[in-house]
Amino acid sequence: MKNKQGITAKKEENFSEWFTQVIQKCELADLRYNVKGFLVFQPWSVLAMEKMYKYFEEVLQRKGHKPHYFPAVIPESNLKKESEHLKGFSPDVFWITQGGNKKFEEKLALRPTSETAFYQMFNLWIRSYNDLSFKTYQRANVFRHETKATRPFLRTREILWIETHCAHATQEKAFNQVKEDMNTTKEVLHDIFGVPFIFFERPAWDKFPGAHRTFAADALNPDGRVIQQPSTHMIAQKFSKAFDIKFQDKDGEEKDVYMTTYGPAISRIFASVVIVHGDDKGLKFPWEIAPLQVAIIPIDKKANKKAEALKKEIQKFASVEIDYSDKRPGEKFNHWEMKGVPIRIDLGLKDLEKKKLTLYRRDLDKKILINEKDLIKTIQKISKEFTKNLIKKADKVFEGRIKDTKNIKEIKAAIKQGAIARCGFCSVEKDGTPCAEIIEKQTGAEVRGTRLDEKSKPLGKCVICNKKANHIVYIARSY
Amino acid sequence: MKNKQGITAKKEENFSEWFTQVIQKCELADLRYNVKGFLVFQPWSVLAMEKMYKYFEEVLQRKGHKPHYFPAVIPESNLKKESEHLKGFSPDVFWITQGGNKKFEEKLALRPTSETAFYQMFNLWIRSYNDLSFKTYQRANVFRHETKATRPFLRTREILWIETHCAHATQEKAFNQVKEDMNTTKEVLHDIFGVPFIFFERPAWDKFPGAHRTFAADALNPDGRVIQQPSTHMIAQKFSKAFDIKFQDKDGEEKDVYMTTYGPAISRIFASVVIVHGDDKGLKFPWEIAPLQVAIIPIDKKANKKAEALKKEIQKFASVEIDYSDKRPGEKFNHWEMKGVPIRIDLGLKDLEKKKLTLYRRDLDKKILINEKDLIKTIQKISKEFTKNLIKKADKVFEGRIKDTKNIKEIKAAIKQGAIARCGFCSVEKDGTPCAEIIEKQTGAEVRGTRLDEKSKPLGKCVICNKKANHIVYIARSY
Repeated sequence: MKNKQGITAKKEENFSEWFTQVIQKCELADLRYNVKGFLVFQPWSVLAMEKMYKYFEEVLQRKGHKPHYFPAVIPESNLKKESEHLKGFSPDVFWITQGGNKKFEEKLALRPTSETAFYQMFNLWIRSYNDLSFKTYQRANVFRHETKATRPFLRTREILWIETHCAHATQEKAFNQVKEDMNTTKEVLHDIFGVPFIFFERPAWDKFPGAHRTFAADALNPDGRVIQQPSTHMIAQKFSKAFDIKFQDKDGEEKDVYMTTYGPAISRIFASVVIVHGDDKGLKFPWEIAPLQVAIIPIDKKANKKAEALKKEIQKFASVEIDYSDKRPGEKFNHWEMKGVPIRIDLGLKDLEKKKLTLYRRDLDKKILINEKDLIKTIQKISKEFTKNLIKKADKVFEGRIKDTKNIKEIKAAIKQGAIARCGFCSVEKDGTPCAEIIEKQTGAEVRGTRLDEKSKPLGKCVICNKKANHIVYIARSY
Repeated sequence: MKNKQGITAKKEENFSEWFTQVIQKCELADLRYNVKGFLVFQPWSVLAMEKMYKYFEEVLQRKGHKPHYFPAVIPESNLKKESEHLKGFSPDVFWITQGGNKKFEEKLALRPTSETAFYQMFNLWIRSYNDLSFKTYQRANVFRHETKATRPFLRTREILWIETHCAHATQEKAFNQVKEDMNTTKEVLHDIFGVPFIFFERPAWDKFPGAHRTFAADALNPDGRVIQQPSTHMIAQKFSKAFDIKFQDKDGEEKDVYMTTYGPAISRIFASVVIVHGDDKGLKFPWEIAPLQVAIIPIDKKANKKAEALKKEIQKFASVEIDYSDKRPGEKFNHWEMKGVPIRIDLGLKDLEKKKLTLYRRDLDKKILINEKDLIKTIQKISKEFTKNLIKKADKVFEGRIKDTKNIKEIKAAIKQGAIARCGFCSVEKDGTPCAEIIEKQTGAEVRGTRLDEKSKPLGKCVICNKKANHIVYIARSY
């Protein structure tokens, strides 16, 4: 019989089963919806994702992005304007062909991403250098008829995300935008959500369809697979030529704008938050995005009044609930630990007589006994340390996972250990494809790319072809 | 030549042109997207709608609704489960028939509303009376392939809305939910957004497809047409039978649940906010949902430093921006009045020398001169009065618009004046349809329904058939 009380799979031993159990038992999403690859997001994930949206949007607005909302449908002719983009996305497009009983003359795509929606309006909105940099974003659902196997949150057919689309006067400004996007990713994904990652420049054969350069953050799962998180793209001028987006520069000349685009997928980032911080007990939410921050458990009915009084004080600065359910105290303790609530207050009569309180901190997984009068001060102190503790732990796990390798044998060994292999490589342009294919065939892992912030110079030879190594690349398995 | 500087149409004289100008000149939405009936929402509307979402969601959560997010696609077979619902919505459904090159065996509907998505999960989630009332909501985009003429914000093919879906143990509880929904509408739509409305129970021939009883809030446009705002429905047991949603009651018996559903459409409510408060100068936003609350205009460059200092103080409690654009001061004044910013600070050197400040209040459309040291206190005071002033004005306009009528001639006259006609009517059940059709044919107006809070008893005879009047109904033109 299935143990309904808690997570029974071990995260390190059977990650896949652990992840599925967490999704189901913590009620993050119901997987039984009758269209393949689509989830029913439940309150516990929706509440956290709402906060995640808020943090991303605040930072984007502070950096000058203006919120828009574009139609979810895009005419086929828009997608066709840029051939690489069409080729890259058309196998994945959900097509709307009919309204009521009426067949459309032109099919509508359910947006897989919105470049081709935004750009036709950029064509109308951008006139002069005064309009640039033109920085937008939208909060939206996007759709991919994935041909690969879907996985809850990690690869789904409807994705909850943010997409930013910007136009710039020069290539340099576009590149600065890409660097700003990387920094935004650090500010939010790492410093608030506590998810470590490496930003790679993707090799030529793995770029966003239509992009000149693609940079993507890879986060790591305990099974050693990386999962692509936000990516930012130098779309450069392919699209501006296709959509005829010109501006009059200071010198009076008409020029094509340079495009960039950045896409943090909230529902997929949520998966990394769950995966990175969770443990064998269940979820562990960073304080800032926890759906609930404090749970109060009155161990005796006589403590109910005190519970209400504490709730009143705490709710002035944190979200708080009292668990009045019929479960035994032990079950309640386990329940809230599994649900990843940062602080639990166990209200026992013995403590109360001594004017003491027992707090459970999910960051350190330990109980502390405090004086009742110190409660507010203590919660406020914990709230400031909480996410830092989670980040410290996550960073440590991540750091140990990169292994230097000198040949295919060492790469294989590193990948088998669940590490990211680092090595010399001939070329990340199209001519490097054969070597990358050999690596993939022999190890099941992919060349994820190079680092902009790489500190060492490539030494020696390509691990595969023995030609001069022009790059240091990172190799990992992915989903 | 088009005057680009401001609104040239008069709201009362040419409402339709006024509304279009406000949308375009205030940059609420761009109407040039290349799919009919779809808008590109621009920052000025998106920022306000985000706040509108926040207020609705806060109230819903406080009243015990849990946020969910369901797939945007619904299999055709779900829609088919309840025949009235299918009949009502299928002419309006966007159908997805293809993923990439692959034709689907079963068509997917792009959700026109999500009853048939939620209910199949309710079937899995609801087991016992302990689970009830089960109260959910989602923030979502929905799609209607409208056969009627579309109008920006008022009737579009993609709608930004909230939908709540609830299951209850008894009909009484379901009816209490409907009353709660009406109250939520008052709390948010009227008391925060300042939009007056009347909640009508719709006649039998105008119910939500599949509903037992439908209640809908009608707001009023200056051209005398009403626009349907949130509606709440006693779905009752038709759907629970169709989706087999049963619960075990306290008495051990298996019973069908009672459903209710409520749908505030944020993008359409936004239209009523614009229409109700706007004037010949342009927009007028309630303080709480203004995309920007305070605009500072330094009339001389020497005032820039002071502007920055004031901004720093104000941004602690309100959103504020300084207008450094190249326009002349007069143009800037007009611009921010048109954009509906509640408070404008005109920073002139003469005022500053005397330690004075000139504030423009958009609620009263007047300038006030205050002591510099009183600025924060004054803004805080205005922020508390602002929306109340807007509400008072809006309520007054609305109140005068209901006319008692005794025959078709009087109804015609009332409708011609842009009023809502009130009269005795035979029946709001199916047998009243012929009389309603006569009214519609002769006046172009519809029977909007009866009021739950009607104070008088129906007297006399039906205005059309002269049979006994069983109801007092309200008649108005709509979109």
